[in-house]
Parts: sequence; structure tokens; C-alpha cells
Amino acid sequence: MCEANAYMVKDGEETLLMESVDLVEPEADGTFRLVGIFGDQITIKGKIRRMNLVDHRILFEP
Amino acid sequence: MCEANAYMVKDGEETLLMESVDLVEPEADGTFRLVGIFGDQITIKGKIRRMNLVDHRILFEP
Repeated sequence: MCEANAYMVKDGEETLLMESVDLVEPEADGTFRLVGIFGDQITIKGKIRRMNLVDHRILFEP
Repeated sequence: MCEANAYMVKDGEETLLMESVDLVEPEADGTFRLVGIFGDQITIKGKIRRMNLVDHRILFEP
């Protein structure tokens, strides 16, 4: 499986937001909807900083 | 390997932009830099519409 983990990077520190993210979708209000492989969902305020697919990492920043 | 293919969706049609994308990074000018697993790079004008990691698909729109 090729899901990724999503992190928030703030002041150089990474905080895990969600594991096993399948779907990333921008919403109209500027947030991002993240859906996990089991259907769990969270909404992220922030913007994408970098995605490393081979490393399974999605980094957001405030 | 968990790279993805990047597509541009316009008028309901998908055009392949790049295969085997490893890195996706927003640039200061609003474009996205895509780097493939072999180090090849392209720059995309557009915004992210959806990413399906399990399906290995990154969709951009104008």
C-alpha cells in the first residue's frame, strides 16, 4: 500500500497529523481534507509544504 | 515504490503530465515543482485538485 503519513511542520518540529493517508483534497475554504485508508477523515488548516511519495510523507505548514 | 502519476484535468479530460513522481513541492510563484524518481523535473502551473495515494494519482487543474 502506498498511503503516506501527514505531518505539520512548525518551528522546525514535525507533529504527526494522520497516518495512512490515502486521499488529499483541497476544500473551497482553503483547508485540506485528508481521508485515511480506513475512511477516517480530518481537516487541516495550512498549506502543503512538500510531499515525498517514495518516503510516504506529506508535510503541511501553518 | 510508491511514486504516483501526475495528470492535468481540464474540461473533464486527463492529460498525463509526468510518470513516477516522487516529490511535489509548491514554489513561491504559485507553481508546483514535480521531481520524478530518476531526478527529472517539471514545473506545473495549476493547483492540486486531488491526490489519491493508494491509486498513485495526483490530479492538477488549471
